[in-house]
Amino acid sequence: MNFTEEEINAGNQDVIQIIQTSKVNLCDVEYAGEAIDFLKGFSLLHSGPPVQWRNMCSAMRSAVCGAAVYEGWAENLEEAQDMAERGCFSFGSNNEHSAVGPMAGIVSPSMPVMIFQNTTFGNKSFVTFNEGLGKALRFGANDDFVINRLKWIEKVLAPIIKEALNRSGPIDITSMMARGIQRGDECHNRNKSSTSLFIRKIAPWVVRTAGSREEIAEVLSFMDRNDHFFLNLSMGSSKATMDATIGIRASTIVNCMCANGYQFGIRVAGAGKEWFTGSSGYAKGHYFNGYNAGDANKVMGDSYISEAAGIGAFAMGSAPGGGRFIGIKPAETLQYSLKMYGITVAEHEAFKIPALDFRGTPLGIDIRNVFQTGVLPVINTGIAHKKSGIGQIGAGVVYPPMVCFNKAIREMGLNTSDGNSIAGNKNIILKENAK
Amino acid sequence: MNFTEEEINAGNQDVIQIIQTSKVNLCDVEYAGEAIDFLKGFSLLHSGPPVQWRNMCSAMRSAVCGAAVYEGWAENLEEAQDMAERGCFSFGSNNEHSAVGPMAGIVSPSMPVMIFQNTTFGNKSFVTFNEGLGKALRFGANDDFVINRLKWIEKVLAPIIKEALNRSGPIDITSMMARGIQRGDECHNRNKSSTSLFIRKIAPWVVRTAGSREEIAEVLSFMDRNDHFFLNLSMGSSKATMDATIGIRASTIVNCMCANGYQFGIRVAGAGKEWFTGSSGYAKGHYFNGYNAGDANKVMGDSYISEAAGIGAFAMGSAPGGGRFIGIKPAETLQYSLKMYGITVAEHEAFKIPALDFRGTPLGIDIRNVFQTGVLPVINTGIAHKKSGIGQIGAGVVYPPMVCFNKAIREMGLNTSDGNSIAGNKNIILKENAK
Repeated sequence: MNFTEEEINAGNQDVIQIIQTSKVNLCDVEYAGEAIDFLKGFSLLHSGPPVQWRNMCSAMRSAVCGAAVYEGWAENLEEAQDMAERGCFSFGSNNEHSAVGPMAGIVSPSMPVMIFQNTTFGNKSFVTFNEGLGKALRFGANDDFVINRLKWIEKVLAPIIKEALNRSGPIDITSMMARGIQRGDECHNRNKSSTSLFIRKIAPWVVRTAGSREEIAEVLSFMDRNDHFFLNLSMGSSKATMDATIGIRASTIVNCMCANGYQFGIRVAGAGKEWFTGSSGYAKGHYFNGYNAGDANKVMGDSYISEAAGIGAFAMGSAPGGGRFIGIKPAETLQYSLKMYGITVAEHEAFKIPALDFRGTPLGIDIRNVFQTGVLPVINTGIAHKKSGIGQIGAGVVYPPMVCFNKAIREMGLNTSDGNSIAGNKNIILKENAK
Repeated sequence: MNFTEEEINAGNQDVIQIIQTSKVNLCDVEYAGEAIDFLKGFSLLHSGPPVQWRNMCSAMRSAVCGAAVYEGWAENLEEAQDMAERGCFSFGSNNEHSAVGPMAGIVSPSMPVMIFQNTTFGNKSFVTFNEGLGKALRFGANDDFVINRLKWIEKVLAPIIKEALNRSGPIDITSMMARGIQRGDECHNRNKSSTSLFIRKIAPWVVRTAGSREEIAEVLSFMDRNDHFFLNLSMGSSKATMDATIGIRASTIVNCMCANGYQFGIRVAGAGKEWFTGSSGYAKGHYFNGYNAGDANKVMGDSYISEAAGIGAFAMGSAPGGGRFIGIKPAETLQYSLKMYGITVAEHEAFKIPALDFRGTPLGIDIRNVFQTGVLPVINTGIAHKKSGIGQIGAGVVYPPMVCFNKAIREMGLNTSDGNSIAGNKNIILKENAK
């Protein structure tokens, strides 16, 4: 690839135009095995760039074993682990199958997925329901409590939400995020107000379903108990939005960031479906009582697509109330948003920060800007325990490794191996692993 | 009355202690005629200090006539007006009967009221349900649409919420406000997140009531359609809190502010139930399309107790997203909160502003500070049309007249008529009507 600065800027404008005009609806609920072609037989999807069992971190391995028990493929976790070691399971990356999942992001065929549609461009995305806080499969917890809750989600929650959606019609998640961001959310690690908005919208329709009164009350309570319920909806919206930018010629905009606890990966709109990877790092953050940084798993999750889509840590200026949860002084959250304007090419027309007089969130990470300034995109993230079966132990801030951007710069032909300039940044020399 | 500075400061500390330790629950729903002794026969409660028909503004008169039709006392609005002119109705001030009401604040016997209890001090307060936006009795609208909605509130909403509360048990409104304020509300003219929290909490219990599925769905939709639904809950909480401070010896803290479109009134903890009044003024604010300042009614409403309780405009730093609604630049909302620390004696221990690193909201308006600094307490308010039957036309900011504070200063013996000093402010001379 070899593009002029004009071609690159035009490509980036196209990508921004796609993002700004995308409206994503939640349309339906189906079982993942029906919705996603890959999920036939003993196959599982996971978060981050593609990874096989031998390289999976322990939290992801735990989630894999939990999913195998949940599916009835194995009698217990030991048998599941044995099957995994023997190569019985096929693994795929969520992002390569129009899916995303928080943390370990394991999707197995019997899990219900919410189906999102980008109403402007037609493409769909698939996301499981958020299980709840603390001990959850996505953080590597996999005991009976976790498995039973997954079964309840499959048997009770999913059919009721599916019927409610069929009655209500598609729900506009993009505008719900916009309102949530005006109410103190950033829609990645702070989803309190957006969760509220979803409950308010769906509740009257849930009441009209065939579920029993007790089931309906429990569905409403389940959503109420989990202020991260909306995270998976926000991720579905970001995924359906950003996937519409895959392969836009010459664009240097990052349209996917994710990690699997082993590798961190980014994708760039103009480079199609290629992964640019580096090592997964550790988050710096706030730990729940009794835990510290030494307990942390390396970062993982597909939710980092949030920041690529202009929300999450990029919108933290809207969410000072969420600062402490991720180890940041509340009054300083605005600075995180402000810094990101330096590496982005636009401001979001729907997602706006009230405290900045409704300035749009920083949107469209240009790998040229990251490379040129050395400023990495900030991401906020949950932190899983590095040992199997424990779950979430904190939340914090993390940055992708610079090597991902360096590889993308090279792949896009924006420099030569002997240190020549990149388009649009004539005087910048590529330094591999620059900080 | 003649108190030393030490006595005053001790009294004020007592008042602050009462406010900080008050926890207010929503406990029950009853018809106002059963809950409030005053409401026998053709009697009505109204907002603000006591006022009779001859001095009522047109918006309040319209609400009175609407209530008379709603009650079946009159066949139509003309007959209602005729009855009012002939003195058929008895009027009382909400605040003198443990009640509060937004805007015109009319409470008639058949209207259901939510019953709040200050669990620390035992006293109760009574507030009607919020009717919705735009055309509503509280703004002086009184056509069939308004009356029919009041009937639906009486016949459908109230019994379902009452049964839900009986099943759920009392709901802690104080802590709900605290969470709302961390999610972009100030709980006076911005109640979006608090309304969400209430819906999330009550929804599973509403589902379990004897209401039909369709009624329950409509109850949930009714609350969802009105982001000010929580205003009346917040007012009930503030009233039950502030009433516990009535008559605390020597205290110079304002525990009630309100207006009726004719007079503005304040009460001071150490002066018992005495009113200190001045003329109602006009708000400066933002008008809905098609209206301007020339259409505005003078301010009215009991919701100004919010600011006395440390929320509303005093908490605007938490609610930049609500700035435009009241005609303030969002980025400047924080300044309004900061200025109020200058006339208050404490910071709220439950209501906190995330953008100030969770500093408590300014709490406890000391009339000595207002008098000394000339800084009046800021209040945000809805604006009604001055003509009958139209409803809300905007929202804005208003200040009580200084004369209220001057009268209170004199009544409390903090100065003499020949200009002597007030306790704690040795060098300050009272100037009547100082701006």
